[in-house]
Amino acid sequence: MSATLAADEALARRRRAGEEVLSLASGEIGLPVLTVLRERLAEASGRNAYGPVAGSRELRAAAAGYWARRGLDTDPDLVVSGPGSKPLLFALLPAVGGDVVMPVPSWVSYAAQARLAGRRPIAVPTLPGQGGVPDPEALRARVAQARAEGLDPRCVVVTLPDNPTGTIADPATVQRLGEAARELDLIIISDEIYCDLVFDPADRAVSPAVFAPERTVVTTGLTKNLALGGWRTGVARLPDGPAGREVRGRLLAIASQIWSSTAAPVQAAAAYALTEPPEVVEWVATARRLHGTVVRAVADRFTAAGAVLAPVRATCYLYPDFEPLRDHLGAAHGVHDGDALAALLARRHGVGLLPGSAFGESRRPLRVRAATSRLYGETDAERTEALSAEDPLRLPWIRRSLDRVAEVLDDLTR
Amino acid sequence: MSATLAADEALARRRRAGEEVLSLASGEIGLPVLTVLRERLAEASGRNAYGPVAGSRELRAAAAGYWARRGLDTDPDLVVSGPGSKPLLFALLPAVGGDVVMPVPSWVSYAAQARLAGRRPIAVPTLPGQGGVPDPEALRARVAQARAEGLDPRCVVVTLPDNPTGTIADPATVQRLGEAARELDLIIISDEIYCDLVFDPADRAVSPAVFAPERTVVTTGLTKNLALGGWRTGVARLPDGPAGREVRGRLLAIASQIWSSTAAPVQAAAAYALTEPPEVVEWVATARRLHGTVVRAVADRFTAAGAVLAPVRATCYLYPDFEPLRDHLGAAHGVHDGDALAALLARRHGVGLLPGSAFGESRRPLRVRAATSRLYGETDAERTEALSAEDPLRLPWIRRSLDRVAEVLDDLTR
Repeated sequence: MSATLAADEALARRRRAGEEVLSLASGEIGLPVLTVLRERLAEASGRNAYGPVAGSRELRAAAAGYWARRGLDTDPDLVVSGPGSKPLLFALLPAVGGDVVMPVPSWVSYAAQARLAGRRPIAVPTLPGQGGVPDPEALRARVAQARAEGLDPRCVVVTLPDNPTGTIADPATVQRLGEAARELDLIIISDEIYCDLVFDPADRAVSPAVFAPERTVVTTGLTKNLALGGWRTGVARLPDGPAGREVRGRLLAIASQIWSSTAAPVQAAAAYALTEPPEVVEWVATARRLHGTVVRAVADRFTAAGAVLAPVRATCYLYPDFEPLRDHLGAAHGVHDGDALAALLARRHGVGLLPGSAFGESRRPLRVRAATSRLYGETDAERTEALSAEDPLRLPWIRRSLDRVAEVLDDLTR
Repeated sequence: MSATLAADEALARRRRAGEEVLSLASGEIGLPVLTVLRERLAEASGRNAYGPVAGSRELRAAAAGYWARRGLDTDPDLVVSGPGSKPLLFALLPAVGGDVVMPVPSWVSYAAQARLAGRRPIAVPTLPGQGGVPDPEALRARVAQARAEGLDPRCVVVTLPDNPTGTIADPATVQRLGEAARELDLIIISDEIYCDLVFDPADRAVSPAVFAPERTVVTTGLTKNLALGGWRTGVARLPDGPAGREVRGRLLAIASQIWSSTAAPVQAAAAYALTEPPEVVEWVATARRLHGTVVRAVADRFTAAGAVLAPVRATCYLYPDFEPLRDHLGAAHGVHDGDALAALLARRHGVGLLPGSAFGESRRPLRVRAATSRLYGETDAERTEALSAEDPLRLPWIRRSLDRVAEVLDDLTR
């Protein structure tokens, strides 16, 4: 079971049982749907045809425009829609074939999807402060070793910006990844679902599609930037050229056998969103500011408690490491690994977060991932207020969560 | 690529190029969305949380009620929702494990899904006039043989009522299937998506869940009875008891890694539909009458032309066999197999239908499947008129399609 979805359901059960919980496990974005998107969905409620497996022309053209505005010229015929970027990522594995290289730590589902598709996950560490992209040198060595061992690595999955660390691989690293992938003949699957959630305007996640256009598949969706996880909609951009067209053909065949098409009314609303009219752009900017403010405030609490973490530059995740507190955690709480740390926080304090092992790490490191996107309020009214607040940290319900984080960490580390 | 979806897209391209086409390939139901369901979707447009992987409580309770009204008492905790019954059928294969027995002919996606999931499809013939359920005696022999050959059959997929033949296996056959499955220790996956489209009120598709409740998974959706294919929503009913709970756990784990959950606004509308308020029941009854009238009228044209087929008792499919015309088709058209017959009809007449080989048969038989659910009109106005017409066969656009079928068959067989 997906670790995030399972943690989320466990927290919901505790909450229903009347317990106080602090939900830092799931990256679901707790913000209301932008009104104009609700209207577009309602207007499209009469659409009940399957339509093309790849998605409507309207949606594919909108996605092509979205990518073009980010420097990636895109042929709409090379866009494939799916009910979320998750099923697209899953279907890409058999479409590309072979075993799957991925960074560690990385999103909970990459390795699970690889195993489900009968592929072997091959883990490669990332560079310090640059999560989501395997260290290109380590990648070369690991792929050579894997091939010598009889494995068949044919693609590498990267996350730009990164979940779980909230960091961004440097463009130079991404360029070196592209070169390594070309040398090793790997397809790059670049999960860019957080690309609109980079906080500093001077900062940017540069896609490997810039450096290795002939071999990079890009996926994204509306789950993170527009808080539409529950609508289930994503898009993939296949590389131009013979290799890309071949992967596209196989991806469509697989999609046609697993999900047929994306819910038609959702496609219509997604197409509108991807054209990025001003109100959509403004909403995303507002949400991005909120994410940045809250995730950094939570990161500060962890730093103050003695954990170490790389500065959070995007997403709504932080990935603190309690290594400096190892002796204390062992002596005071009998906690010697990340799993025990997460379990203690859940049991003792009702705080749900995920241990590093959920992201492919060994149990030993005292690392956990906290997601802050559920702290904006319990009701649509609170969440709307959080979006429009000049200083969301002063809203009583957000302040309370921050205080709770500080309290819990104080209890843990004192 | 799914044969139906591919044929559908090919026909759409020909139509856009200005050619006259007659679309008998895809089983998409060409009828407008019931207004109250459009309203429910619009009302739920603010729902953007993932919710439980299994589906909302509301949806699972509604599905349990739907099955209870059909004689299958159902624990809502044993219901799992998905974005269509197709992804549920796909995910059930690794959830059950092993190789997959299926009837021949059967729906285009069963064998393709099995291969995609790394399972081997094992074909078993059906009894004459009783499509969708393997002949229980032949099943016993084939499974024994498969096991002797080193295959590992662990489930059998059945379709009740049947696609492609529009027939229904007799309850006695279904009972014998249940007994055979118990002896052979096979899980039965019963695809009952057409269960509300049985024409004669005295007739009924009896689920294997009646005879083998401990080992039968039932799937259905709103694609066929409510024409909501493009909304992508389906439900599975897992068997009670340890085996069923184990399959459920694995199914949820797989679902969480492939699709997370079904689009939340769609879940809300589906939950409403599955409670079967009077207007939904009435709409389904009206659509069922229309399907029965049109599919039987088309079947009459095929019979008149000299093809043989079992009486169509459900669905909107017919599966005529041109064997009596083999000599003529060979001499006059160089047509010696089902593929050539379908290709000739497409090329010469713009008639899209599928050869028996798409349903797992060999190419040799001169059998094709015709789907009649796209004949109700090109616009919502025409389709609404078809639904309310006392005699839909007198509507000019339906009459024209029927005449076209007769003309084409006349040209083919004269």
